[in-house]
Amino acid sequence: MSARTIDGKAAAEAVRAAVAAEVARLSSAHGLVPGLAVVLVGDDPASAVYVRGKGKATIAAGMRSFEHRLPAETTQDALLALIARLNADPAVHGILVQLPVPKHIDPLAVILAIDPAKDVDGLHPMNSGRLASGLPALVPCTPLGCLHLAKSLHGSLAGLDAVVVGRSNLVGKPVAQLLLAENATVTIAHSRTRDLRAVCRRADLLVAAVGKPGMIRGDWIKPGATVIDVGINRVPTADGKGRLVGDVAFDEAVAVAGAITPVPGGVGPTTIAFLLVNTVRAACAAAGLPTPKI
Amino acid sequence: MSARTIDGKAAAEAVRAAVAAEVARLSSAHGLVPGLAVVLVGDDPASAVYVRGKGKATIAAGMRSFEHRLPAETTQDALLALIARLNADPAVHGILVQLPVPKHIDPLAVILAIDPAKDVDGLHPMNSGRLASGLPALVPCTPLGCLHLAKSLHGSLAGLDAVVVGRSNLVGKPVAQLLLAENATVTIAHSRTRDLRAVCRRADLLVAAVGKPGMIRGDWIKPGATVIDVGINRVPTADGKGRLVGDVAFDEAVAVAGAITPVPGGVGPTTIAFLLVNTVRAACAAAGLPTPKI
Repeated sequence: MSARTIDGKAAAEAVRAAVAAEVARLSSAHGLVPGLAVVLVGDDPASAVYVRGKGKATIAAGMRSFEHRLPAETTQDALLALIARLNADPAVHGILVQLPVPKHIDPLAVILAIDPAKDVDGLHPMNSGRLASGLPALVPCTPLGCLHLAKSLHGSLAGLDAVVVGRSNLVGKPVAQLLLAENATVTIAHSRTRDLRAVCRRADLLVAAVGKPGMIRGDWIKPGATVIDVGINRVPTADGKGRLVGDVAFDEAVAVAGAITPVPGGVGPTTIAFLLVNTVRAACAAAGLPTPKI
Repeated sequence: MSARTIDGKAAAEAVRAAVAAEVARLSSAHGLVPGLAVVLVGDDPASAVYVRGKGKATIAAGMRSFEHRLPAETTQDALLALIARLNADPAVHGILVQLPVPKHIDPLAVILAIDPAKDVDGLHPMNSGRLASGLPALVPCTPLGCLHLAKSLHGSLAGLDAVVVGRSNLVGKPVAQLLLAENATVTIAHSRTRDLRAVCRRADLLVAAVGKPGMIRGDWIKPGATVIDVGINRVPTADGKGRLVGDVAFDEAVAVAGAITPVPGGVGPTTIAFLLVNTVRAACAAAGLPTPKI
């Protein structure tokens, strides 16, 4: 038996196409062109790749992209001043400050400075609180991608036993909130969980977001379960290039699970797609238009 | 075998005594007298009893109590105007609008109008978001009471399998966040959970917050588990007076559990105690003083 491999790339492309169609509609019907500002402080090569990818995807969807690359020695005050300008700029509907920021800058101060209505990363407490309270919210993009993949597979998640391994503000906790809102029975497990294997084996839907390569083994998975692997870990290879692996031991899990996301090509591509979705949602909210159905 | 009955009244009295001591210290050392404003709209008799109880407890702890009783026909605008005045009043450190409000008033508009720094009910999304993000927050009082009782019994909750039945913004969800922050493995179950009995039976710590009299039966409880019963349901009796029961079938559960909160006299009394704690915390934060250790 071999699990169905969930094609995150195809799913992301479909979402991006839906975004592009919605952007075209908003532009012609309302003269509204959603705009996303991405701020990068410093020259971390991985961050630069992410930022470039986000900018490209934004433009490909027909939206405006505003890239702000600041030197590593930028002061916190200067960064906050830029955020204040972006908050006030009516052409900017979404603001994303690429994390991590250099050590002399407090990431929480940055998060709190972004207008919650433009917080397309969904990290402002006002947004996590709105999500937790069942109110409309901007939700972190990777959790939205996880939910999208799970729902496109299952339709309804109601009554499923879902286990989320990991409790970060960026992934684990918001994924749990989204699954709960879909009426799954949700367990949040983590490094202090006693018998993590047994807890994982209860899951009809297992979301792994711990950042430990291959930690979740084949015999931790209930036969037929759906496995969403959020981990993106680079491990060394003989040729020195390294390769990306998830938090789940894929070769073992694929023999047990019913469906599984690969790494790369699973959750990863959906993240940028939902960044675009969030930007369109923020733009519609700012313009007093109803939330688009994408 | 019979479970230990957790004495919530004694626990609440100890917390209230600690609050009174802290209030005395703040007053003499810093000239700071914490003040709590309670707003009641309409004349629901149960609400009136609660409000009176809160006012009495506030004064008994040495704090200032501001009671605002408004007629049932008060407009939403008038209520929001009062909240704006209380937000601006430096003698008021905590604001509580007794829920439910009359039907012509939107409770969300009321919650959003309260300054999050004075939101001693912990219902503002900014506070639920701060709680979800692991930041200092004002947390709803009943969940704080639940956590206090569980911790006074167990010391550490790390690694415990905790199951919360119910996912309200007022109890279920914040209790789950608090237990997660204490490193318990947390499952949130609810009306859509498939095999609720089996899920409950996994729990080392079971928190029932569903509002259904006696729904959780003895054989839903793992032998030796700790049971925190948040339900307060009035059921009819032969004499017509009715009596209060919890969400747990107490007589059955007491034979199985290791420890259990009774209803009344369990979680209930701790709620007002933690309202006082929240008011003191809000007052200290407003005065730039460190969070008191109560």
